[in-house]
Order: sequence, then C-alpha cells, then structure tokens
Amino acid sequence: MSVLIVGSTALDSITTPTAQNPRLLGGSASHAAIAASFFAPVRMVGVVGEDFPKAYLRLYRKHKIDLQGLQIAPGKTFHWAGEYEVNMNNRRTLETELGVFETFTPHLPETYKDSPFVLLANIAPALQHHVLDQMRRPKLVVADTMDLWLNIALPSLLKLLPRVDGFVLNESEARQLTQEDNLLRAAKKIHKLGPKFVIIKKGENGAILSSKSGLFLSPAFPLEKVVDPTGAGDSFVGGMMGYLSTAKGPIEKNLRRAMVYGSIVASYCCEGFGVTATTRANRAGIEKRRKMLEDLVRF
Amino acid sequence: MSVLIVGSTALDSITTPTAQNPRLLGGSASHAAIAASFFAPVRMVGVVGEDFPKAYLRLYRKHKIDLQGLQIAPGKTFHWAGEYEVNMNNRRTLETELGVFETFTPHLPETYKDSPFVLLANIAPALQHHVLDQMRRPKLVVADTMDLWLNIALPSLLKLLPRVDGFVLNESEARQLTQEDNLLRAAKKIHKLGPKFVIIKKGENGAILSSKSGLFLSPAFPLEKVVDPTGAGDSFVGGMMGYLSTAKGPIEKNLRRAMVYGSIVASYCCEGFGVTATTRANRAGIEKRRKMLEDLVRF
Repeated sequence: MSVLIVGSTALDSITTPTAQNPRLLGGSASHAAIAASFFAPVRMVGVVGEDFPKAYLRLYRKHKIDLQGLQIAPGKTFHWAGEYEVNMNNRRTLETELGVFETFTPHLPETYKDSPFVLLANIAPALQHHVLDQMRRPKLVVADTMDLWLNIALPSLLKLLPRVDGFVLNESEARQLTQEDNLLRAAKKIHKLGPKFVIIKKGENGAILSSKSGLFLSPAFPLEKVVDPTGAGDSFVGGMMGYLSTAKGPIEKNLRRAMVYGSIVASYCCEGFGVTATTRANRAGIEKRRKMLEDLVRF
Repeated sequence: MSVLIVGSTALDSITTPTAQNPRLLGGSASHAAIAASFFAPVRMVGVVGEDFPKAYLRLYRKHKIDLQGLQIAPGKTFHWAGEYEVNMNNRRTLETELGVFETFTPHLPETYKDSPFVLLANIAPALQHHVLDQMRRPKLVVADTMDLWLNIALPSLLKLLPRVDGFVLNESEARQLTQEDNLLRAAKKIHKLGPKFVIIKKGENGAILSSKSGLFLSPAFPLEKVVDPTGAGDSFVGGMMGYLSTAKGPIEKNLRRAMVYGSIVASYCCEGFGVTATTRANRAGIEKRRKMLEDLVRF
C-alpha cells in the first residue's frame, strides 16, 4: 500500500572534517521518501523553489516517488548549511534560509487523501496538523520531529501527539520533552501524551520501541566509516514506514522488523553525502544487511 | 571450573543526587567475584586493611568465594569516594586513599596457580602481570582496565595485551587507547596489540565483541531506575567469566551468551548501592532476565 510522506525538501550544504558538499538533495521528506521507496510506492508532499535542480526531480522519479504533491513555488528552495565535528556526532547549523518554506501550506491532491500510511516526517507541527486535517481515515499515522519544534512550537506538537499512532524522536529530544533522563521512563511519559507507540532513536546505538506489547531494543547496523549522518533518522523512519505498509498482518507484530529495515536503510544513508549512498542501495543489498544484522545480535 | 579473579578490594563512599553511602564494599575484584559466583567457584586475590569490616568478609563467604588469596595487611583498606551527576552517567572522584594497596604484591596460593580461567579485573597492569607470571598455563585469560592506567601505566598495559586472550574496556577508553573515534576501527587496532577478542563496553547501550568470528552486538538489560552504576563494568566481566568457566564447548562459541549473562548481572549491580542489589540476585532471577532480554531483542 502507498505511503504518504510530508516533510521538508531542501538543499543541504554539508561540511565534514574531510569534505565540503554544497547544495545536496536533502530534507526529511527527501530522505524518508527515498528510504520508503525500496519497500512501497511513495507519495510525497513538499515544496521546492524555482532553483531546485532538475536532476533531483529525476532522482525522485527514479525511485518512483509520486510528485503530484510536490509544489514548485516562486522563490528559493529551503537551504540548510551545517558542519560536523571530528566524531560526526555533533553538528552545528551554519545557516538556514527558509525560502519557499516560509509561506508553504501543504495541499493534498485528491488521490493522496485516501493513503493508508501517513508519515509526518520532520517539519513544523502546524504543517503536520494541516496534512492530517485533509486525510480520510488513514490506517497508520507516524510523526517524527526535531528539537527546533520542541523549542519554538511545543503547544502545536503536544496537540499533534494524540492524533498520531506512533511518535519518533531522538534520545536528547525525548529527554527534553519529558524532563526525564531515563529513556524508559521518558517513553512512558510520552505515551501519556497520546501515541500508542514511541520510538526513541539512539543513532549508532540503535533505537528503543515502546508499545502496548512492551519494549524492543532495535540494533543499528554497525559501520566502520560514517561519511555523513545527515538524514539517517529520516531514512530510518522512512524505511520503517515503507516496510510497514507492505508487511502482512497486524502493525504491532511488524513493527520490530520494520525498525530493523529502517536502520538498514539509515546505514546506507550514513555511507555517503546527502542521499548519494541511499540512492545506490537496492532491496537485495538491504536483505543481505538484514541477515547480517540478525547474525550480529544472535546469542 | 574455577575462576581466579585479581583486582581491587575497596571501601567505596558513593554520593548520588539522592543519597550518600559511606564505606560500601567495593573494588573491581569484589564486584567481579560476586558476579562470577552465580555461575562458578571463585578464587579471589586482593588485599584489605585491618579496618575491613568483618561483615564484608562474611558477604564474600556467603557467595562461596575462596579467600585464601585475600591478604589482610597492616594499614587501611583502599578507599574511593566519588560523586555521580544527575544523569548517573558522569562521575567524579572526590578522594582516593590507596592504603594497603600502595605496597600490595599479589602472591598466589599454590592451589590457585592451576586455575583454568583468569580474570585480571581492573587494577594496576604491573599487578596483572605479576599474577600472570605465577600462573601455570591457564585456559583463558581476560583483562579489564580503566582510564587511569592508560594515563599513568600505558607501557605496562601495552606489554600485558599480548599475554591475554581477551581485553575488555569501555568506549571512551577504547577511543583514548587507539585515537580512533569509530569503535569498530578501534577494536581492529586493539586486536593488533595482542588480544584475540576485544570487548568494548557501552554502558546502557550494551557492548561490542570483536573476535575472529566477527562482531557481536550485546544488548544491555534495560532498567527504569539506576541507583548506582559503580561496579557495573566489573560485574559484567565477572558474570561473563563465571559463565564461560562452566559452559560446555569452545570459548569462542560461548562468548556471546557469556556477555549476555554478564550484562544481566551488571543490571542487578546498578539497582543498588555497592554490591547490595547484586548480592540479592540468584540464578533463577538471572535466567528470567536472560529470557526477557532474548525477547527484547528478537525480531
């Protein structure tokens, strides 16, 4: 079944200790949509400016991403510039130009409104609400977020949580949201805010799922070299939703495996700048890493 | 089979955000020996002063720890005082009084010298060497360490590594030793220093095993409340060695499960000050947590 993904569509200029890469394809929707495309048909909702490279539209299409929901607006594409420190775990934002995102309102094409699986990838909570307002009874709604929205749009985010089935955030965001250092206690507090399941991402240390059937400790696929972790979290949630939308049986039952697939796609993401390594992945390679990961955690 | 454990035997005064506990039973050998005692007979090598509480000797005996190798020397027992910050991950040393450790030389009782399994728990590398010098062909030697020895006794530690089968250290120590941020690359560099297998401990994020049969990602047993993590790493390696010494078949084959048992015992350790929670554990409870952990990582 189709996955509808709303999120940011951006140009990312990324500096690491070893390289500088200007104006790469980026944004939460781009990463998540490409990740999901290995498993399911994807419908994308976003906005780009007139400066958006045609090559990137071709890249979306190569992944059979439905672009009816991608607006091309007068003005410039959202641009983010960031720099990673030596250990690739800390990054700082050098520049943010909102461009066409400043006035963006996501209008869903009619055909999108029946999408059974909805991923509200990282974007302003008001826009996540606006997409949900237009949907007709989706089967599963999952939202991701970032620290920025905890800082500047918390009331809107808190209103969103009862409207979603699953909520995904990273460990520092979980601590910030709940004022709780222990992640298991943080997850319990987040459940009380609405979501039936909560996923706390821990980067190279995997992720924790908390749901009505208990906890799951999801491993991350270990990498000897991380080239650029930008978008790894978006790829994780995108891959997860892509897998969930095609797996048979109840969602609760499929969540664990879906997270594992998500972290496999995220591992590809980390191996290249922007989406360059993700876009070279394929289902056979993903299955191979999934089998490797199964062996890495077996005892 | 018996496990010989050498390490520190100490009195720990531990301050956390919620409590102060003076002169608890502590030290790497104490934690490791009690942890190993759930699986195997333990022989302990260490030194305490005349001030060492009799109750703590009774506690060792309750765990059937052979104390022939525990010297009681004139002077004061090694005392460490430390304080944990709110998140229980950062600790700082308030005071260290070496006491009888200043002049300690471990002399092994004759009966100890044939011990097949040797754990060189965290202690000065010179003392770890001195114990190994007295052993007759042990079947397995594993060494643990701490950042202090990397700082003040690195040459001695580097000479120890070719003499051990397995080397255990935490992630920041692995990075410090190898000047390598990525833990998989760090493990590869440590192999070149001698050990056939390398275990990098990551606290609540589990541990990584690197051996000739590849990698294993060992989970940590998740806890909602960490009371005092002091000695968790010692308990991990103690439990691991205890299990290894009784498991049938090749060591390489048993290592994964041994690490899981180690992290189960470490989880008990974290639930109380000093060894108070560890000492209340039993094999049935350990097996229950092991089964729970198996379910927590299954996908």
